[in-house]
Amino acid sequence: MSGSGSESQRWFQRALEVIPGGVYGHTSPVLSVPGRYPAFAREGRGSRYWDLYGKEYIDLLCGYGPVILGHRDPEVEAAANEARERGACLNHPSPLMVELAERLVAWVDFADWAVLAKNGSDLTTWCIRVAREHTNRPMVLKARGAYHGMHAWCTPGRGGLIPEDRAQVEEFSWNDVEELEACFHRHRDRVAALILTPFHHPSYGDSELPTEAFVAAANRLCRDSGALLVLDDVRCGLRLAELGSHGVFGYEPDLAVYGKALANGHAISAAVGRHRVRPAASRVFLTGTFWNDPAPMAAALETLDRVRRDGVHQRLAQAGERLLEGIQSAAGRHGVEVRTSGPPAMPYVRVEGDDSFLRTQALCVAALDRGVFLHPHHNWFLCAAHTDEVIDEAVERLEGAFQDFVRNGAGGGPPSP
Amino acid sequence: MSGSGSESQRWFQRALEVIPGGVYGHTSPVLSVPGRYPAFAREGRGSRYWDLYGKEYIDLLCGYGPVILGHRDPEVEAAANEARERGACLNHPSPLMVELAERLVAWVDFADWAVLAKNGSDLTTWCIRVAREHTNRPMVLKARGAYHGMHAWCTPGRGGLIPEDRAQVEEFSWNDVEELEACFHRHRDRVAALILTPFHHPSYGDSELPTEAFVAAANRLCRDSGALLVLDDVRCGLRLAELGSHGVFGYEPDLAVYGKALANGHAISAAVGRHRVRPAASRVFLTGTFWNDPAPMAAALETLDRVRRDGVHQRLAQAGERLLEGIQSAAGRHGVEVRTSGPPAMPYVRVEGDDSFLRTQALCVAALDRGVFLHPHHNWFLCAAHTDEVIDEAVERLEGAFQDFVRNGAGGGPPSP
Repeated sequence: MSGSGSESQRWFQRALEVIPGGVYGHTSPVLSVPGRYPAFAREGRGSRYWDLYGKEYIDLLCGYGPVILGHRDPEVEAAANEARERGACLNHPSPLMVELAERLVAWVDFADWAVLAKNGSDLTTWCIRVAREHTNRPMVLKARGAYHGMHAWCTPGRGGLIPEDRAQVEEFSWNDVEELEACFHRHRDRVAALILTPFHHPSYGDSELPTEAFVAAANRLCRDSGALLVLDDVRCGLRLAELGSHGVFGYEPDLAVYGKALANGHAISAAVGRHRVRPAASRVFLTGTFWNDPAPMAAALETLDRVRRDGVHQRLAQAGERLLEGIQSAAGRHGVEVRTSGPPAMPYVRVEGDDSFLRTQALCVAALDRGVFLHPHHNWFLCAAHTDEVIDEAVERLEGAFQDFVRNGAGGGPPSP
Repeated sequence: MSGSGSESQRWFQRALEVIPGGVYGHTSPVLSVPGRYPAFAREGRGSRYWDLYGKEYIDLLCGYGPVILGHRDPEVEAAANEARERGACLNHPSPLMVELAERLVAWVDFADWAVLAKNGSDLTTWCIRVAREHTNRPMVLKARGAYHGMHAWCTPGRGGLIPEDRAQVEEFSWNDVEELEACFHRHRDRVAALILTPFHHPSYGDSELPTEAFVAAANRLCRDSGALLVLDDVRCGLRLAELGSHGVFGYEPDLAVYGKALANGHAISAAVGRHRVRPAASRVFLTGTFWNDPAPMAAALETLDRVRRDGVHQRLAQAGERLLEGIQSAAGRHGVEVRTSGPPAMPYVRVEGDDSFLRTQALCVAALDRGVFLHPHHNWFLCAAHTDEVIDEAVERLEGAFQDFVRNGAGGGPPSP
């Protein structure tokens, strides 16, 4: 067991007593490197976080996406605190809700309206229902392996599902224009929505950018059939462009969902839509106990100001390119072949030919021991606090990680405890 | 239009431009008194809140339930702020997650484990899936008019639903033992879960406590059939007892969900369950981007300390009784007959015989103008900041409201603008 994780592991044993699985969901250590990765964290600041033992890591996951400016950005925290001072759970929203909706409508070219919620799942699922209401059709098409949240129609888990949950959901392979066309053809006049992430970032798989032909087919098939194109921009939003990623690839969505990076880690998600979808949107009930909290709205407004002012998405791309170049060089020096995929701002990296992911896990454990937090099966995230100096420091630490990785047997599985 | 609401109304007009319905969900002014109630709030403190015009109200909705100690309770805010200082969105949860799960397991007699989420809906829906996983059966039974969240299987809205959403959900009338028995009999060996709120608090209807026979039937039918009893304690939790309400009425649940008051307004919900349900719980995927935020967990721990230390649920019952006595006296003095229902800690009050709710709406508008925030179709909520002095002040204001109500024509509809 990694020494730095032992305090985490003690807490994890305690967690197992009272929580099914100990830590559940996407941050479960079972989904990273079981028994080797920390399960709990103490603190984050800027580009770094600390585990319970006090070990510091350069953070290349950034809370799995929400942290885009750096942990505890002072300006965002100040904006949130000021809003929170007036009360977080009143009988009505604050005017900040209107200001944020206005901002989203102003910044997203196709958007005529916006709604706010707490999680991505809240709104991907709501958009599916809005599409069904708008089209009066049932069927939803999604890419195989695409993550759109934890609700029954799309969860990656199998537990607790009944046949009805997926009766009106059909899957196709990413970038497979023929299969997508066949889906539309097979369910002619029954397709309510095609839901897509801007690019394909499956867990336990390389990322794939969309081909031009695939984007064109998605736009055309929705337009011709009357189905709505729903862009699940929860993970990519603000990271590939100032806000929406649709323009980067040429999608023409009717609805889009943002979340994750929208408020630099504060709990908020948003959906926007075209004018013609507004009547349906107003008929699909949407609510949550705590959704009127003005603090995440203030944090989102500040975050949006900052991503524009500081050109954050360009910064993330540069930082990602610098990181990937550094990794490739270090890997090459140690005779390790790594495969990178996805946009540099949110890249995925694994050991070439490592179908079992065991060598990639071993590399990630070596990085962890050297003070860099990576993930073996999930794309990584750059943030604005990843300055050139921080990236260079990360690469230097990873140089040591590659050395350890090779010394330990070049990843014939994770190093033994 | 109510003068004090005019600034809210200006913001509401602005909201209508960019948000379908302007303000959506349970805090939509359309669901209170359209055109007369404020749509936005500026600030809350203790037992009161202020609208955008600066008009102050004694708050008898308490954010629709979350605020149990009073708005911006200093101790809860301090606990949340201290936790938040270390970072809200890290790659792992904080040990506070374990401490809160331990607390829930210690305080809820039947609970062996706990999970945390953000909204009530997150976990009522997850519990349904856990029950399906545990029983390997599909059917869910719920009371007609009961609110269990905004997801498709139970939403009060009709928009965007497809037949599959409700194919495995059947409804019965609250307290109707015969109909409940008939449901279980009809779906013999197919019932996964019976989900109930501790008492029945439909919108646009009087509250109804459960009969002893109904509680006994719920327990027996679940036990005998192998279905799970899921108690949706989101609205009542912490208000009728220190935490769970099941003991108040004699329910023997297998799963229970808390939310609303758990952290005095901070965004968190929790589900707890029996030992035998743990394997199923560990197999139903559950996650949310922002769920590891330690601030609401710290707020929940502090809130639970306080409800025990200060005997809050007794305080709420006393405050509610004092309020209802005062309202009955004031109503009587003005020749108005009011009907009260539900537990005094979270009562519902309307004008007797007012089937259209128009007279109750008019009374609520009169109360609003006098500085008391009530709701004409939804139960109210007392909080610990409702001291005897505050209740007496509210009753004094309501005395004036009854006077205005009678003077304006005893509620032949809401007073005209």
